[in-house]
Amino acid sequence: MSYTETDLLSINTIRLLAIDAIAKSNSGHAGAPMGLAPLAHILFTRIMSFNPKNPKWINRDRFVLSNGHACMLQYALLHLSGYEVSMDDLKHFRSLDSKTPGHPEPHETPGVEVTTGPLGQGFANAVGLAIAGKHLAAEFNRPDFDIVNNYIYCIFGDGCAMEGIASEAASAAGHLQLNNLIAFYDDNHVTIDGDTNCAFREDVVMRFKAYGWHTEVVEDADRDLEGIEAAIRRCHKVSDKPCLISLRTTIGFGSKHQGTCSVHSGPLAADDVKAFKTNAGFDPEQSFIVPQEVEKVYQDRALEGSEKEKQWDKLFARYQQEHTEPGTDLTRRMADLLPDGWQKSLPTYSPKDKLIATRETSGLTLDSLQAVLPELMSGSADLTPSNNTRWPSAIDFQPPGLRLGKSNWSGRYVHYGVREHAMAAMMNGIAAYGCLIPSSGTFLNFMSYAAGAIRLSALSRMRVIYIATHDSIGLGQDGPTHQAVETLAHFRAIPNLMVWRPADGNETSAAYYVAMTSKQTPSMMVLSRQNLPQLENSIIEKAMRGGYVVAEVGESPAAITLVSTGSEVCICIDAALMLRDRHGVGSRVVSLPCWEMFDRQDKDYRLSVLLDGIPCLSVEVLSTYGWERYSHEQFGLNRFGASGAYKDVYKKFEFTPEGVVKRAMATIDYYKDAAPRSPVNRAFL
Amino acid sequence: MSYTETDLLSINTIRLLAIDAIAKSNSGHAGAPMGLAPLAHILFTRIMSFNPKNPKWINRDRFVLSNGHACMLQYALLHLSGYEVSMDDLKHFRSLDSKTPGHPEPHETPGVEVTTGPLGQGFANAVGLAIAGKHLAAEFNRPDFDIVNNYIYCIFGDGCAMEGIASEAASAAGHLQLNNLIAFYDDNHVTIDGDTNCAFREDVVMRFKAYGWHTEVVEDADRDLEGIEAAIRRCHKVSDKPCLISLRTTIGFGSKHQGTCSVHSGPLAADDVKAFKTNAGFDPEQSFIVPQEVEKVYQDRALEGSEKEKQWDKLFARYQQEHTEPGTDLTRRMADLLPDGWQKSLPTYSPKDKLIATRETSGLTLDSLQAVLPELMSGSADLTPSNNTRWPSAIDFQPPGLRLGKSNWSGRYVHYGVREHAMAAMMNGIAAYGCLIPSSGTFLNFMSYAAGAIRLSALSRMRVIYIATHDSIGLGQDGPTHQAVETLAHFRAIPNLMVWRPADGNETSAAYYVAMTSKQTPSMMVLSRQNLPQLENSIIEKAMRGGYVVAEVGESPAAITLVSTGSEVCICIDAALMLRDRHGVGSRVVSLPCWEMFDRQDKDYRLSVLLDGIPCLSVEVLSTYGWERYSHEQFGLNRFGASGAYKDVYKKFEFTPEGVVKRAMATIDYYKDAAPRSPVNRAFL
Ligand SMILES: [Ca+2]
Ligand SMILES: [Ca+2]
Repeated sequence: MSYTETDLLSINTIRLLAIDAIAKSNSGHAGAPMGLAPLAHILFTRIMSFNPKNPKWINRDRFVLSNGHACMLQYALLHLSGYEVSMDDLKHFRSLDSKTPGHPEPHETPGVEVTTGPLGQGFANAVGLAIAGKHLAAEFNRPDFDIVNNYIYCIFGDGCAMEGIASEAASAAGHLQLNNLIAFYDDNHVTIDGDTNCAFREDVVMRFKAYGWHTEVVEDADRDLEGIEAAIRRCHKVSDKPCLISLRTTIGFGSKHQGTCSVHSGPLAADDVKAFKTNAGFDPEQSFIVPQEVEKVYQDRALEGSEKEKQWDKLFARYQQEHTEPGTDLTRRMADLLPDGWQKSLPTYSPKDKLIATRETSGLTLDSLQAVLPELMSGSADLTPSNNTRWPSAIDFQPPGLRLGKSNWSGRYVHYGVREHAMAAMMNGIAAYGCLIPSSGTFLNFMSYAAGAIRLSALSRMRVIYIATHDSIGLGQDGPTHQAVETLAHFRAIPNLMVWRPADGNETSAAYYVAMTSKQTPSMMVLSRQNLPQLENSIIEKAMRGGYVVAEVGESPAAITLVSTGSEVCICIDAALMLRDRHGVGSRVVSLPCWEMFDRQDKDYRLSVLLDGIPCLSVEVLSTYGWERYSHEQFGLNRFGASGAYKDVYKKFEFTPEGVVKRAMATIDYYKDAAPRSPVNRAFL
Repeated sequence: MSYTETDLLSINTIRLLAIDAIAKSNSGHAGAPMGLAPLAHILFTRIMSFNPKNPKWINRDRFVLSNGHACMLQYALLHLSGYEVSMDDLKHFRSLDSKTPGHPEPHETPGVEVTTGPLGQGFANAVGLAIAGKHLAAEFNRPDFDIVNNYIYCIFGDGCAMEGIASEAASAAGHLQLNNLIAFYDDNHVTIDGDTNCAFREDVVMRFKAYGWHTEVVEDADRDLEGIEAAIRRCHKVSDKPCLISLRTTIGFGSKHQGTCSVHSGPLAADDVKAFKTNAGFDPEQSFIVPQEVEKVYQDRALEGSEKEKQWDKLFARYQQEHTEPGTDLTRRMADLLPDGWQKSLPTYSPKDKLIATRETSGLTLDSLQAVLPELMSGSADLTPSNNTRWPSAIDFQPPGLRLGKSNWSGRYVHYGVREHAMAAMMNGIAAYGCLIPSSGTFLNFMSYAAGAIRLSALSRMRVIYIATHDSIGLGQDGPTHQAVETLAHFRAIPNLMVWRPADGNETSAAYYVAMTSKQTPSMMVLSRQNLPQLENSIIEKAMRGGYVVAEVGESPAAITLVSTGSEVCICIDAALMLRDRHGVGSRVVSLPCWEMFDRQDKDYRLSVLLDGIPCLSVEVLSTYGWERYSHEQFGLNRFGASGAYKDVYKKFEFTPEGVVKRAMATIDYYKDAAPRSPVNRAFL
């Protein structure tokens, strides 16, 4: 635990790599890397286990920089440690198509675990990573086989501490007693607006105590390296609480302007950099320098990490022999493969089956799949009975000491509490850990609370499943405060997010099939509260394509296409019958449960579904916003809903076969002299 | 402070009104109203000042039920107190077009202050109401003239306590020392998923202490009426802290299933209701009964309230004489009028003016307007220097004891901290108080964190101004984590929210003009980080219409319309010149800064902007989602952005005149044999 000149030199090397990179890109945040360099050096050289040559080793310690704007700290450490982040990459910090973007993204940079920068996200991701670690340890560890026993280390600043998402996650972590999580609070008293005194004077340590965390304070984290390490080692001994280490640091330590908000963002002045380099014993004329003795410290540590992974490999080889079944299972999951034939468990339905809400078909699907997919981990933001997310045989994920029924850390059902935003970010963390597929629910309308994290699921390519029930005015009496209107437009507009609004049970199964097999894409299941019939022509293979013809009614060729999703598809089929019987009009009904998937089909297929030459009317009981892409005319709800029994509300807004027929006839009339092109046809891609 | 049988009878009357209404509608939540009836009775008969005949009296105490699902409690109290909520309204609880929707909405029900139900919102609204009260008191009170001295009373449950938005708001309230806020925590140990033990075991009282709140605990709030009242009166003596009173209550008190989650939602069983009525001395065969002595208690209290308002009217009449200027100002603001000629202060620009980002023109507009609109209250979620939200002469809204510069409670600039969601909800509270127009900023991308509150601005018709800067990949190096893509689609799809993306200074002024004069509509200003030219043909009066022709270039009639917003309009104008010079093609450029406003124009005008018979290409550097509504072909960004210098990133994605020309030529070619209808033409409304 003794620290030498080489450690101080290492710490200044880190600071200078950040300073030089930010100067070169003329953009970035040097203050936090300079203040946090001592902690990061200790973590990467004395505490954490990792192998830079295999950043995906399952039992590595995870490092999360929740204040992602400080990412030059992380990039510098990854470079020093020998990850595939070269000095040249550092020199291209924040430049186009570099490996070192403005905020950390795991798909861009080896060694980055989760996408951070949007404040509070990384902290909540870290809680998710800790949940995954606890769960996998409980599931796979055996006497003498600590297969999973790593730690999650997370740094966060004032910005993260102020964000609600971090509060939610901290409260959940305290409840769950995640002692594999050690979070460092960078208490530097500075934010963009100035001294934290201007908006943030709470007692953060007391707050974390209130959440049930173990807490430590290091008064001078600029200099007291021994104190930092000792605090971490005390946290390693805590058995039933997550740990907070509050570090009093100086932002921009070593700059002339240290401790002020002027060092938060942007490059340091040239003379300030020169003075820093001179004081630290570096050549003021040179940049991007790593002294040899520093290089060696990090190389030695990397060798230790590589050796640790080798030891683990040996342990796991013995484990596979002595514990064949879990060994085989974990091997499969580490390879990111689903078990052979798992999809045979997807439920199928026929029109003779009873009316049933898609939130229920979703629940039945989860129950079928959990039996063959042990990696499935479900949950809800305190709407378990409404979201149908908990299968009957589920065991809750809870700290064993609580004695809540049979619950323990091997349980696969998480009670996230009324914490939608943190729930989504925790799911991102669970997915990022690997070997697990998280799914969890709330009402569609309250998925908006989680928007910040859901977009990061899509950006960072996490296979996460959002279960969004009560998807429209069809929820009835709860009224406009709970009825989604704009929500589908919002989530459909997010790139790489599959939004599914299935019309029945088979479409629900199709949605889960695609969700499970899309390893780089999150999915959202948008599900009805009200009961719906099982359609004549819905079959999983068709629905998997995102859009298909579900009915051709009356004379052919059809005079109109009705394109719809979810609970309105059956209304459109009734409308098609009415068009035939009352008006002698032939029509086609298209179900379009997932636009993202439909768009991935070849053009011929899409044109075979949305025909050229006949008008197309969309029908969906939410905002029409965006439907012009797949239809010529739109019937929807471009206002807030209303509180009342579901059938009364549908009738008020004319979401009935009669209401659809009225608009279909107007559409046919409008296009009678000018056959429109299919919406699939475009002038350019 | 003595309580009699009549009080107990009153409390049971409240419980039974809730029970009967929920039984009749077969929907709703009886548990919380039953547990909270004692507190509500005390508040409405002994504590709060209000006049049911004038629910808008400016100095009334405000009551916020943050756990809005318990709204039958509030409706019962409003009815008993003599607000325009009849017994018939209670009998139509949760039925279509009633005054008693499933969750409270101020525009539906007299006496309701803010829209609650989405958990945590009401709590944060209450903090906003308290900010408004503190500010107006500091601005208008004079020795012997306590014009504004009311309290904000807020009830919240476990659900609200778990939501991040409430944590953010509580931290802000503690910092701001809002001693006019008294919040009651309904500590009933039950949520939808069961006992709070399953997800929520933190020490809420300690947490609020950490935020800097005064705290009180009432151990038996089912029975200890004196204890509740005494705690409130102690809070009235606290001079420098908001107050939390934690009440240990029993959910569904009096039901056979009290204290369990089975009484959280849905009606009580018939036999349970009968037993309750019999025990409470009511006729088990009758429903919706208010005993005469109970009626009298509430009528007497209403008279006291009416009398208090009369006293206040007298005080204010004297105030207007002795303090003419503030008296006139407050009178105007209470009438919800803007000062004559205020709009003359809107800045105007000419093409000779320098290039300047719209975040800067927004800042200049705020600075001009603050001088003539004392009701304008600005702020930022810790991005003050980036959002340009603080005018140079601004004084910060801060507790006077802090001695931060000249700041005090009369200041009009709020440092909300990194708390986007609570910021939006606090602004809703400030707007709901009256006499103030809140505006505040963050990056467009992080407005998503506030989505839950922003939709409620629109639903509850609050004049709130969101300042969303750094509106695209144009922010450059911060990269995809900070670059909005789906965000405009999301917010444009919200009914009654005006999303403005001005192209230059005049359009910015137009946006503020419409925002200020739209008393029932929130606005979002979507603003560039990068500099933009002042356009030739932008004038405020045109831009106010939401869309207009900004350029006609080359041969007429034009072969194509380029429709665009914000930072891409000037690129389209350059493209139009290039189309003329390189291809001999005439084109029209339309700026469409606000869709919501454009849609409100008559059809002739809209058709004069988006012509029939020529193709229309939209150009906007965000998701094309939704643009099909105003264009035939779309050029946008249907993927996440990239980290790099702004010009490099624009070039990568071809947002250059050349990139626009390429797509314009493809569009012209595609439509050369079939002149398309204007997107304004529709088969039906
Ligand atoms: Ca800080
Ligand atoms: Ca509760």
